[in-house]
Amino acid sequence: MGKPRVLVVGYGVIGQRLADGVARQEDMELVGVVDIAPTLSTRALHEAGMAYRLFVVAPEQKAAFDEIGIPVSGTLDDALAETDIVLDSTPGGVGRKNKELYEARGVKAIFQGGEKNDIVDVFFHGYANYEKGVGKDYLKLTSCNTTGLIRAVDCLDRAVGVERVIVTIVRRVADPGDTHRGLVDVAQVDPVPSHQAVDLMTIMPHIEATGLLVHVPTTHGHIVHVIATLKGGLTKNDALELFRAHPRIRVVRIKDGFNSNASLFRYARDLGNKRADMYEIAVFEETLATSGREFMFAINIPQEAVVTPETMDAIRAALEMQTDRLEAVGLTNKYLGLS
Amino acid sequence: MGKPRVLVVGYGVIGQRLADGVARQEDMELVGVVDIAPTLSTRALHEAGMAYRLFVVAPEQKAAFDEIGIPVSGTLDDALAETDIVLDSTPGGVGRKNKELYEARGVKAIFQGGEKNDIVDVFFHGYANYEKGVGKDYLKLTSCNTTGLIRAVDCLDRAVGVERVIVTIVRRVADPGDTHRGLVDVAQVDPVPSHQAVDLMTIMPHIEATGLLVHVPTTHGHIVHVIATLKGGLTKNDALELFRAHPRIRVVRIKDGFNSNASLFRYARDLGNKRADMYEIAVFEETLATSGREFMFAINIPQEAVVTPETMDAIRAALEMQTDRLEAVGLTNKYLGLS
Amino acid sequence: MGKPRVLVVGYGVIGQRLADGVARQEDMELVGVVDIAPTLSTRALHEAGMAYRLFVVAPEQKAAFDEIGIPVSGTLDDALAETDIVLDSTPGGVGRKNKELYEARGVKAIFQGGEKNDIVDVFFHGYANYEKGVGKDYLKLTSCNTTGLIRAVDCLDRAVGVERVIVTIVRRVADPGDTHRGLVDVAQVDPVPSHQAVDLMTIMPHIEATGLLVHVPTTHGHIVHVIATLKGGLTKNDALELFRAHPRIRVVRIKDGFNSNASLFRYARDLGNKRADMYEIAVFEETLATSGREFMFAINIPQEAVVTPETMDAIRAALEMQTDRLEAVGLTNKYLGLS
Amino acid sequence: MGKPRVLVVGYGVIGQRLADGVARQEDMELVGVVDIAPTLSTRALHEAGMAYRLFVVAPEQKAAFDEIGIPVSGTLDDALAETDIVLDSTPGGVGRKNKELYEARGVKAIFQGGEKNDIVDVFFHGYANYEKGVGKDYLKLTSCNTTGLIRAVDCLDRAVGVERVIVTIVRRVADPGDTHRGLVDVAQVDPVPSHQAVDLMTIMPHIEATGLLVHVPTTHGHIVHVIATLKGGLTKNDALELFRAHPRIRVVRIKDGFNSNASLFRYARDLGNKRADMYEIAVFEETLATSGREFMFAINIPQEAVVTPETMDAIRAALEMQTDRLEAVGLTNKYLGLS
Repeated sequence: MGKPRVLVVGYGVIGQRLADGVARQEDMELVGVVDIAPTLSTRALHEAGMAYRLFVVAPEQKAAFDEIGIPVSGTLDDALAETDIVLDSTPGGVGRKNKELYEARGVKAIFQGGEKNDIVDVFFHGYANYEKGVGKDYLKLTSCNTTGLIRAVDCLDRAVGVERVIVTIVRRVADPGDTHRGLVDVAQVDPVPSHQAVDLMTIMPHIEATGLLVHVPTTHGHIVHVIATLKGGLTKNDALELFRAHPRIRVVRIKDGFNSNASLFRYARDLGNKRADMYEIAVFEETLATSGREFMFAINIPQEAVVTPETMDAIRAALEMQTDRLEAVGLTNKYLGLS
Repeated sequence: MGKPRVLVVGYGVIGQRLADGVARQEDMELVGVVDIAPTLSTRALHEAGMAYRLFVVAPEQKAAFDEIGIPVSGTLDDALAETDIVLDSTPGGVGRKNKELYEARGVKAIFQGGEKNDIVDVFFHGYANYEKGVGKDYLKLTSCNTTGLIRAVDCLDRAVGVERVIVTIVRRVADPGDTHRGLVDVAQVDPVPSHQAVDLMTIMPHIEATGLLVHVPTTHGHIVHVIATLKGGLTKNDALELFRAHPRIRVVRIKDGFNSNASLFRYARDLGNKRADMYEIAVFEETLATSGREFMFAINIPQEAVVTPETMDAIRAALEMQTDRLEAVGLTNKYLGLS
Repeated sequence: MGKPRVLVVGYGVIGQRLADGVARQEDMELVGVVDIAPTLSTRALHEAGMAYRLFVVAPEQKAAFDEIGIPVSGTLDDALAETDIVLDSTPGGVGRKNKELYEARGVKAIFQGGEKNDIVDVFFHGYANYEKGVGKDYLKLTSCNTTGLIRAVDCLDRAVGVERVIVTIVRRVADPGDTHRGLVDVAQVDPVPSHQAVDLMTIMPHIEATGLLVHVPTTHGHIVHVIATLKGGLTKNDALELFRAHPRIRVVRIKDGFNSNASLFRYARDLGNKRADMYEIAVFEETLATSGREFMFAINIPQEAVVTPETMDAIRAALEMQTDRLEAVGLTNKYLGLS
Repeated sequence: MGKPRVLVVGYGVIGQRLADGVARQEDMELVGVVDIAPTLSTRALHEAGMAYRLFVVAPEQKAAFDEIGIPVSGTLDDALAETDIVLDSTPGGVGRKNKELYEARGVKAIFQGGEKNDIVDVFFHGYANYEKGVGKDYLKLTSCNTTGLIRAVDCLDRAVGVERVIVTIVRRVADPGDTHRGLVDVAQVDPVPSHQAVDLMTIMPHIEATGLLVHVPTTHGHIVHVIATLKGGLTKNDALELFRAHPRIRVVRIKDGFNSNASLFRYARDLGNKRADMYEIAVFEETLATSGREFMFAINIPQEAVVTPETMDAIRAALEMQTDRLEAVGLTNKYLGLS
């Protein structure tokens, strides 16, 4: 049997990164990407040499690409015929309609956080509940914020047990380049609890969670203050060791210059990472603190790329490529260069 | 005996507001304000009709004002001769030097949060530790953030007892009009604990406090997420009643449009408040939540005007105008229109 | 005959300021303001003491105000019965529908810049084409940006003649408190010519105009670089005299601290202006320059209040209160304290 | 004779990019980079595998690098012994002192725009005055803004002749990741003329130039509105052809999504460019306009990388690698992938 064939439907901020991620998984094959009209993303794909094949959803969408010389390799239907599993990263709500197409073709699919939970079999996080996704047909990833948050909480939970989590999320309100949403000189407050806390409880039902979300005018990553009530004792040094040992968590120090969401973005640029992306969340070392049984720390979540590793995990689960959690995430990490 | 005579030294963002505040206290007399060179603030004072007298520190500073027709009523020395107490709102560090002048003239003084604690007799908050300031010569106010935070914590503490406070402070990084500091597209993290938590413990030593501070690119108020561990039980409704009954706390609802620091600023403008200022902190009703013994809520702290009421309280304490805490803050509130 | 009776329909950012403006015109009577549901603006009107009567459009809208204790004085129909002219400051597009109501009641109306030109008899600017509005039934004001721009261009044009104008508009993208639009870390470019240049040519058809608009993430005023080709010669000093003599233009100096849109906003706060508003545009003195026949300067346009004076002029024109341009604008200026 | 050996002194935002640029020039050899203490940039160099050797200025600076395992290959003195020419990208003012070291070692040097003109033999731009730099010992590059501006003006000037240029510069105020400078909700105006206009006249003395600079809170590129008075006629299509034929100018369309400085930054990320950099300025097609003899257009200048190509040209000139302008810039372009 050949490598599992993966198709990315929706080639926007997330879809681009998922396609890159699949291309790096040596035990998977990227069928290509699907979009409906020329965008900056598809123009960049073309200018950079068409690293992937591009498909349209409907035949009549091809003309717009033809006009500017972007080669189209067929339609979604053509692509699905070669596909084992779809990564659907279309705008929120579109996935529900697309699912009918995938079902009709007997193709599995993984949806992103913008879709409703009711369209899938399991709400998935590679580290926290890999086993629940094994063999399932339709999975939904947690959103970027929740994905990063759960990574950190799961890391502590598996080590010493976490009873409760209270978060304050300082949410970046747009991605770099967005002109269709934003805030100017505003810190906007949402009602408590934020959906991230609710989602965490769905994935990790043994933990009580609540929290506040504040939208702020930045684009380079969410900052989350996590206050975790632990079952067991944990020193700061132990926590640092746990975090440092986690392939998807990076421990950084404010005194070294890692003092903001933007400094981590800049560092990813300077590392030469493609698209200036970072897969890891970062824990700011000087923010670790304890008070009673509460253990506190602040993390940075790079919203554009953070879901890529857990989405690769989801492919592994759905297609039963690995049934063991650590084996699965380990392979994802290896191919993404995370260690 | 006449009304106590108050002089404001340093006519910047805070000094302007303190002068306005004193002018509204019917049982005090504003001697005037002191500055060293023409600024937007002194130009506005002039264009609006010289509501207060203006003094310079050194005689040679008068020429610059003369040149543009702003009347100067004398020097700091002249002003001190008519003064019982100074409100020093000069830039951080200048107060220490000024104190020597005040001491030499036997004049009491109240400093703002930018000075070090060691130059004063007491670190002061009108509601939390009024009694400690009574009759003292040199007082220092808590900073804007800490002043607002303590208001809310003291309100709960007096009702049911507070054991511990954990805060996440989303700090506005500049005031409207600042061009000498700022952040663009950055959420910057400081080491834990923030000085606000430390200061809270200085004022309220029976409470354990820690917290994180995140600087964000806004100008219209700090948003603080407060997680208080209570000694006694407290329902959301009880808490709302406590907050609503506090003259310096405003309870607002996100669903009514009060969803941000900027919406509160806009509301203050629409109320017709002078300088679009608001003395009250605001509690966002939909952010109240409980988890175990933890009681949580988010507040907005209008950084420019929030310290005005507590500074008026400090005058009352230092000059022994009132020895009773509630009588003192009640008079301040009455004259500032807070009820 | 009594004073003309003016009704403000739509009580948002602009409507609030128009109502304030009418209330200051001693030769007009404000009937009241009309809105459809409680907002921050109507809550502030109430908290500040109901300086004006409030009407709803449809009777069923009254309940929502009753519930929170805001008194409603009747419906739009009731109000129109007492009204000679409406200032319609509803969101763009609504004015077209409202016009049918005004026509049915035989009431004149003045619309804001968000409506299309085809619904009115004349596209109006108090200084530039007052005469065209005299006695007309339906007028539309220029937008905030164009209103301010025309003030400056008309000032030069009447003195020495302007042949051509090229502008670069650095446009604030939201008002303070907006959470429904904005940009984060983006300077966005529109196709040339901007509508402001086109609108200027409609009002001043003897001038050729073009220009670029760049949206930037600020809230405190548009900055416009004006390059005017003059028919006659003009020194910088002459231009400064012309601008200083104009009641709706303020000349400021960067070296005095007026170095930005935000410093002017701050200054308006410090002057004690209601809502921290400024009616005048500001010319930055150090930006005046000449090159050949081109005369250049940069202005600041306070987007929220700048249209108020010209809207007052429009009432005067439509109702033939004055037929002489200078007499009309002079009265508006007098009542608004502009000199 | 071997390839010219180039050393980069100062490994910050600009120095990183110059080192990358030299490494791509197949006819040059990069000696390494020099810095004085660990920074995000040197940490990234290390984490990414030490693509270049790192030197310190003084021996005692080595310890700080040793402590964190970053290998140091020697001191500035050691490096200068192997060097033919230095690219000095230290903070403004440091270059003046460094020049003494370079002179003492008989090494040529190229400085960036932050230094004063008086420390060099020629103020240089690869396209506009290459010949003046040939064989010189000390050259200074134009600043990022001026470099991009001159590219566009020189392109038109060589085709049809330019008499005068008026610019409005909408300047990004910080780079991504900066926390030591910035503006929040401010558009700040500088006195006219901006230094960019003055610098343009220094490089191209046959052109009269003036202009306004407005600082705005963005990080992703300067937007410049150029109004050029031409000697000869030029249609929009002719201009587009000229710009498209220029290897360092990219023509983009707003309707394709290239509507801002940030969309170009995003596109560079999606192209997979290292550090998300772009060497080309971009002309927004829909901003081209004519009025009389004036030809107008808006450009985007990516401030971090734009000076790299012209700095490579400067090496070629100073070392007389090529004496012909077009041959020199052509080789730079070839090695940087610009066509």
